[in-house]
Formats: sequence, C-alpha cells, structure tokens
Amino acid sequence: MQQRAKDTRLSVIQGAARVFAEIGYGNSSLSDITQRAGVTKGALYFHFKSKEELALAVIAEQHALVLAAGAGIVAADIPALDKLIGLCKMFGQQLLDEPIVQGGIRLTFEASAFDADVSGPYKDWIATAEALLRTAQEEGSVGSGVDPAAFARYLIASFTGVQMVSNVLTGREDVLSRIDQMWEFMMPALSPLAN
Amino acid sequence: MQQRAKDTRLSVIQGAARVFAEIGYGNSSLSDITQRAGVTKGALYFHFKSKEELALAVIAEQHALVLAAGAGIVAADIPALDKLIGLCKMFGQQLLDEPIVQGGIRLTFEASAFDADVSGPYKDWIATAEALLRTAQEEGSVGSGVDPAAFARYLIASFTGVQMVSNVLTGREDVLSRIDQMWEFMMPALSPLAN
Repeated sequence: MQQRAKDTRLSVIQGAARVFAEIGYGNSSLSDITQRAGVTKGALYFHFKSKEELALAVIAEQHALVLAAGAGIVAADIPALDKLIGLCKMFGQQLLDEPIVQGGIRLTFEASAFDADVSGPYKDWIATAEALLRTAQEEGSVGSGVDPAAFARYLIASFTGVQMVSNVLTGREDVLSRIDQMWEFMMPALSPLAN
Repeated sequence: MQQRAKDTRLSVIQGAARVFAEIGYGNSSLSDITQRAGVTKGALYFHFKSKEELALAVIAEQHALVLAAGAGIVAADIPALDKLIGLCKMFGQQLLDEPIVQGGIRLTFEASAFDADVSGPYKDWIATAEALLRTAQEEGSVGSGVDPAAFARYLIASFTGVQMVSNVLTGREDVLSRIDQMWEFMMPALSPLAN
C-alpha cells in the first residue's frame, strides 16, 4: 500500500475509533464516521466494505498500538514482575489518553453486537503475562508454587473487569488507582515466601 | 397489577431475555421477541413502550432473580466468608443455567448500545460483599488490615472479568473452575495471618 493510502486508512480508523468510543457500535453510522474522520465516503469504502470491517480494524489497530507501547516495557532491563505491573499501568493510561484504545475497548465489549471473535487480544495478553510470570519465578520474585498459566488468565480477566467496572462507576476516573489496588491484592498470592 | 397481567409481563421478559442472550440487543427486533415469548405485539406494547424499556426490565429481572437466589445464602448459618464464596458460585451457576441471567448479563455488557445506566447492580453487589467482609473480619477469617470497601470493589470487578473472559474464550465452559481459581488467588490477600 502506498504511504498516502496508508495515511488515509489510518485517519479513517482514528475517526471511527472516536465515534465508536463516544456513541458505541450500534449508534454509529458510516456518515458520522466520514464526517469526523474528514474523509469522503469513497475513501472509506475504498478501505472498508462495511461498518463491521471498520470496527474490526479499530480493534486490531488498538491492539497493535498497545502492543507497540508494551514492547518497550517488555524489552526494558527491569525485573519481569515489574514489567507485568508496568504493562497494566501503561494500558490503564492508554485507556485515559488514547481515543483508538477507548474505541477498541468499547467495541471489544460490544463485539457480540456484530458477532466478532475478539478472543485474539485476550489470548495474546495471557501468553505475554504467562511468559513474564515464568521469568519472574526464575528471578525469584514469584513463588515456584504459582501456576503461571492459571495466574496469567486470572490477571487478564481481573484487569478486564477492573477497567470495565471503573468505566461504569466513575467514567474511568479511578482506573489507575484501581489497577494499583488490584496489584496490592494480587501480590500475596505471588509471594515466594507463601509458595 | 393483576396476576394475569403479571404473568404476561414475566413471559415477555423471559422470551426477550432468551433472544437478547442469543443474538444481542442490536440484532433483536420486537417481532423476534413476540414470536419467542408466545405473546402478541399488543401484549408486549401494553407492558413496554420500547426495546430499550424491555432490555432494562430484563436487566432488573436478572438482578432480582440473582438477589433472590443469594438471599438464602446470605441468611444461612455459615461463616460470612463462605457466604461470599457461595454467592460467587451461585452466580456462576446461574450464568450456565438461567436464560434471564444470560440475557441480563449480555445486555449489561452491551448497555452502552442503548445508553443505559447499569451501575445499580454493581453497586448492590459491592455493598453486599463489603458487609460480608466486615462480618468476616469480626469472625476472624479475614485480616483486620484488609480494607473491606476496596476489596469488595476489587472482588466484584474481578468476578465480572472472570466470567466475561470465560465467555469469550470458552463460551463459559470453564466459568465455575475459573471462579474457584479466582478465590484461590484471592485468599492470601485476605488471610488474618498476613494482615
């Protein structure tokens, strides 16, 4: 794809993410999206055949964006458990700052509305968390009795619920402090002294 | 309301819950619902003015149903911490067995599609959990250093995520074992020995 076509595609996705984040999938029309994205219907349909295809592209872009932001944390020269905690904080911050992430997460929760399989990002994060927990065990910061696969699944599920309930109850105002609190409550289960 | 009108209203809600559980809010039409509920459009419109009003009634009925099932557990002569664990298991079982609960929970996650405030049930469960945690502290099964309000919020958020991710990844096949696992990972944070 030429650079100009790529730029147009990205600006359609950005505009769509803003609209989906604000009013949700069911209430968004393609004309709302072209208006906000500052692109023509022709440009939109050149890249996306339907609202569903566009929504899936927003979810994919959101996941790519958070993964890219996470890559720096995963590559950093810090203990694995600190990487895992840092990834959760980074994701929380993106939920506050980044419209593509806000749109992608809202679409992920509403995905049943367009029968999309949204399991991929969950599986990616569970696999990342599991690998970091194994390294943390080698580093001695997580007890050897902890099952990394089971805890990774629990962590991703809890994180999903924590940010979702923060959104329902406070419009995400307390999401960062609730993520910190989640980690406080999780730490005793990971302690090498107890396991 | 006369008993017959109440029965009709409930059968509309039950039929609607089945349709919402299967195909979601956005894809359901009022004629799908009248067909499945075995009631006429006239009967449906006598009780509900719109699909949104009907969806909110399904959520309310779901919440009432789970609260009623929980009342027996809360009143039982068992330790408060066991009540809290029992409530989570009961809710998990209802998610597997009860169409009204399946419909209500799907609608709660899709609620942004119809701009409904779904914070009420979350707040109720957080308050119930907080009260049980305070009693558990008095009974000595939860450490006195645990903040009951903070942990209650964390528990309800985690539970929400655990059942949601179980639905996305396994169609709820593993929901009961994931709820058990959640409790295993939570217990060390509650331990009276550590707090």
